[in-house]
This record gives sequence, C-alpha cells and structure tokens, in this order.
Amino acid sequence: MQTIKEVAKMAGVGLGTVSRVLNDSGYVKESTRQKVLAAVEALHYVPNDVARNLRHQSTRFVGLIIPTIWHPFFSKLAYFIEQELYLSDYKMLLCNTEQALDKELRYFEMLQKSQVAGIIMISYNDFPEPQSDLPIVTIDRIISPRFLHVSADNSHGGELAAEALVQRGCRKLLFLGSASPVPTEVDNRREAFVRKARELGVSCTVYEETVLLKQEMPVIQNFLAQDIPFDGALTSSDLFAAALIKAMGEKGRACPDDFQVIGFDGIQDNHYFKPILATIRQPVEKMARKSVEILLGKINNPTSGEDTIIDIEFFAGETIKPII
Amino acid sequence: MQTIKEVAKMAGVGLGTVSRVLNDSGYVKESTRQKVLAAVEALHYVPNDVARNLRHQSTRFVGLIIPTIWHPFFSKLAYFIEQELYLSDYKMLLCNTEQALDKELRYFEMLQKSQVAGIIMISYNDFPEPQSDLPIVTIDRIISPRFLHVSADNSHGGELAAEALVQRGCRKLLFLGSASPVPTEVDNRREAFVRKARELGVSCTVYEETVLLKQEMPVIQNFLAQDIPFDGALTSSDLFAAALIKAMGEKGRACPDDFQVIGFDGIQDNHYFKPILATIRQPVEKMARKSVEILLGKINNPTSGEDTIIDIEFFAGETIKPII
Repeated sequence: MQTIKEVAKMAGVGLGTVSRVLNDSGYVKESTRQKVLAAVEALHYVPNDVARNLRHQSTRFVGLIIPTIWHPFFSKLAYFIEQELYLSDYKMLLCNTEQALDKELRYFEMLQKSQVAGIIMISYNDFPEPQSDLPIVTIDRIISPRFLHVSADNSHGGELAAEALVQRGCRKLLFLGSASPVPTEVDNRREAFVRKARELGVSCTVYEETVLLKQEMPVIQNFLAQDIPFDGALTSSDLFAAALIKAMGEKGRACPDDFQVIGFDGIQDNHYFKPILATIRQPVEKMARKSVEILLGKINNPTSGEDTIIDIEFFAGETIKPII
Repeated sequence: MQTIKEVAKMAGVGLGTVSRVLNDSGYVKESTRQKVLAAVEALHYVPNDVARNLRHQSTRFVGLIIPTIWHPFFSKLAYFIEQELYLSDYKMLLCNTEQALDKELRYFEMLQKSQVAGIIMISYNDFPEPQSDLPIVTIDRIISPRFLHVSADNSHGGELAAEALVQRGCRKLLFLGSASPVPTEVDNRREAFVRKARELGVSCTVYEETVLLKQEMPVIQNFLAQDIPFDGALTSSDLFAAALIKAMGEKGRACPDDFQVIGFDGIQDNHYFKPILATIRQPVEKMARKSVEILLGKINNPTSGEDTIIDIEFFAGETIKPII
C-alpha cells in the first residue's frame, strides 16, 4: 500500500509539496509538479482527495438551467445568482435550454456527470421528477416536493394589478399572455387577477396561448382579431405589455388614454426607452440570492431549507392613468 | 502494482463495469458503483483517466469571462457562445467581473484551477499577459499576440456612421460615450468616425469619459453642460444613444428633426420600445460562434487559428432623417 511519504520520497520533495500538487493549492514550480505527478503515477498512489471526489462527487460547481440568458429577466437573475455563488467560492455552469424539454433533460444529465454540487433550475415544461439526490432549487415551479422552491408572490402581483386598474376607472379587464404547457407558480398571476376582478365586480377576459419567449406579437394579433373589448390589461410579461401597446397604437388607440396596461417582471432598468411600463416588479435580486442561499444550505445539510415566496412591488409607470 | 483486473475481482464485477464506473459513462447500478469504488479505494488503484486528468488537466469546461451578463449585448453574446459550446459537448462557466480587474484576475486563476479546457475573455482593463499556455480567445481586445482575437469591424462601423450622418445633412459631428482605461479594438469606432468626418470636410467633437456600463446619464449631463453644438452623433453604445435622445428631449430638442443619432451594438431585438435606434449592429451571433470555433480549434491543435474581424451592418432606424 503506497503512501504520500513514498510519493514524496520518489519525487525528492517534502510532504507539503505533494499535498499542494494533489490539492492544486498554493504555488508549486511546474517542473516539481511534474515530478510529483510522475511519482503518483509510477506508484499508483490514490490521493485521498481523488478517492473522495470519486465517491462523494463533490465539486464547487453549481448548474443553472434556464430557458435563455438572451432575455432581460433571466440575464438579471443569472447575474445575481452567479454573483452570490462567487461569494461562496462556487462557480456557475450556465445551461440555456431554449425551453425544450429534451435539452433540459440532457443538461440535467450532463450536470450530474460533471458532479455538480447542486442545480438551480427554471423549467416551464413537464419535467419528470429526477431519480437523483442532488440538491436542487427550482424557481417559479414546483417539480417535486423533494426540491426546494423559490417564487415571487405572483398571487399578490395579480391582485395588485386588478386593484390598480379598477381604481383607475377600468371596468372591462383583460389578462393576456403566454401560458406554460404545465401548471406553474406563474399561473397564480392570472388566477389572482381574475379572482380580484370578480371581487371588485368588474368583468375579466383571459386570453392565453402557449408560445415560446419573445413570440409576443403573433399572440397579440390573434387576440386583437377577435375584437374583444377591454379597458385595462395585465399581461404575463413586460414584453407582452409593450407589444400590446404597440399593436393598439397602430390601430389608433393610445395608452393610457384609451386603454391602460400593466406588465409583469420589471425588466426596464433604465428609463431611456418608451413606454415606461406600469408593471409588477419581480424581486429578481432577492429571488437569486435566496435560491443560492437555500441551495448551499442544502448542499451542506440535506435536511435544511424551506420553500420561499418573496413579495413583489407595484410600479406605476406611464401606461396607466392617475388614480381617479 | 494493482490492476483493473484486481479491482474487478474484488468488486465481483466484470472489467467493463469497472471501466464504466471510472469513466462515468453508461449505466451502472448504484450499489454496483459503490462496490467498485470501495475496491478502487481499498486497493489504492489509480485509474488511468484520473492520472491522465491530473497530468493534462483536461476537462470539457470552457470559462467565459465578461463584464456582466446583466446587459443586452453580453447576454446575447453569452447565449450564442453557450449554444455553440453545447453543440461540441462543452459546458460553459460564466464569470461576471463587473469590470473590476481584481475580479478578472481572480476568475482567471479559479478557471485555471478548475482545469478548464480554454477561456473566452472580454476585458477592457489593463489585464496583464498571463503566464499560462491555456487556449484563450479574447473579444474586442488584443491582450497578447499569443491569444486569438475576435472583433466586429469597428472601423467600418465608425466610417459608415460618419457617412450616413453627412449624407443626411449633418455638418457638426459628435462622438460621445465611454472609453476604456486602456486601448481596445472598440477605440476604432471613434478613430474611424473622426477620420471619415475629416475626409468629408465636416467638424467633429469627441467627448468621452471612463465610466462603468449603464452609467450613461451622468456622462451625457456633463457633456450637455458644456453646450457644445452638434447636429449628428455617433455614440459608443445604443444605451448612450437612447440616453442622449432622452436628455435632449427634456431640453425640448427632438430627434431626428433637431439632431440625428446613431448608436452602436444593435441591442434592440424587438421594436416594441421607442426610439427605434439607428445603429451599427455588431454581428453578435457570428462573433460568438467564431470565438468558440477558434477556441476549440486551438484546444485540439495549439498552433491553429487566426485573429478574426467580422463585418458590421448599418441599420437606419428612426433616429436619423431620410437621405437628402
């Protein structure tokens, strides 16, 4: 049975040097490093760390599985997730699934093979409960009771939007946007909006299609073709709000004079571009940091952590009227 | 000297099973996997792959070092880089430096320790030439002749912008924006713009400050306080163009009637928001794919690859007038 002492003896170096080479920490001259590795190989020495990694699959990598980084909401979320991981000396593997279930599954498998310490995942597909005891945090979606989950308070967002529109004189509400193929926490926006509209005694139409991100305009055109009257809308995202305002403008209808619109997400982090949307701002930075916090907690203690719902914020913007 | 046969014998499995466990490929029952790993440990067997990895530091990871993913230009670039890496079965480690040199250096060291196969890097700081033979591709910046480099044709962009403004009646040109602490390929935008203005016989003012990304408005306000007349501007980014138009609008000056503006980057991938900027569109997707192509080329053959300049595209938008 070979020991680290024999490696050090064969390489002609001290024990500390062998340890630094094997742990890849601290400075070692390249020629010395090569000597140590040659001795490791010749003696067939298994450093404890290698054996431990093989057995426990521990790395300082965390996988982030998201629909696409090429989108203002997800790029901001990924920014803060990476920033928070960095503070704890973890590195982030970025996986863009383009919302395709087969890519989500393939990435999941790749990340397991890469022996990541954990995964933060955003999937709006029918992702099957994985047979894995890897620590996992999902955002916007409950995939399995075994995984921890972080969301914005989508229900509160839907309620605030209905109240804001009715306070401003709207009587024919509309919820417009895209729906996921499977139920997600995001559905709470619509459900709470419809419920609050009913409570406040106004009508509410729901128009949804299942489309990919950034495919807002075809949905808007299909909706407008049906000529359904509305005077106040909540959309499933800010991009839907902006697309609705543009399409209505082309029909000669001005926002907020002829109709009022509230978006969802809060993607405008500058106000250089118009319209400045009224919106339900998701607490993106808090969601990101919380996801990392509970993931790292679970990595260190598999029984730790609990689901977290974080409150949202209403921003009035320029696409709704002042309160009557 | 222990062999794979002894591992297989002790674990009570076939050679193929041991190989699958050690290479983490193909299906192995978890209980079998644990038996094999126990035998590996008990016999202090060094699988060839582990020794090879220790020696050659080969992984399927590529590091992407960028200022921030929370920015439309870099999020689009990162999207296509990751997509292209995925096609070749590489995984991407995302590193947001927040434009700080010390973070750039720390990430670079972390990536080396993580034994990445290569790095794609965007730094506008005075990054020292690393003592490393890691394959590296830089974008927008030549850090070392040893690294391969990809840029948009910034010079052509600057020329096209000057020509477009003069064709539309501008006689007092302005280049406005942020400058890096050190020379980069991005400076060619300004240099070519100024040179072309001179060739065309019109005046040209340059106003630059060294600021972080998304800090456009203070620069604009400092510039406007100087009351320098201009009738056509090229800005160093689209965000600067939009900020300039907003600030001028607040002074009662309308774009494009009172002054014309061309941005740089092409970040508007929808036209839901106004103004729709005239801009020099960077070939972001091509730059991303080319960076990956030459990086993977260099990983496989250290002498391969050459610097690449990719042409840009002029987009007329709504912030310049029709040609006179």
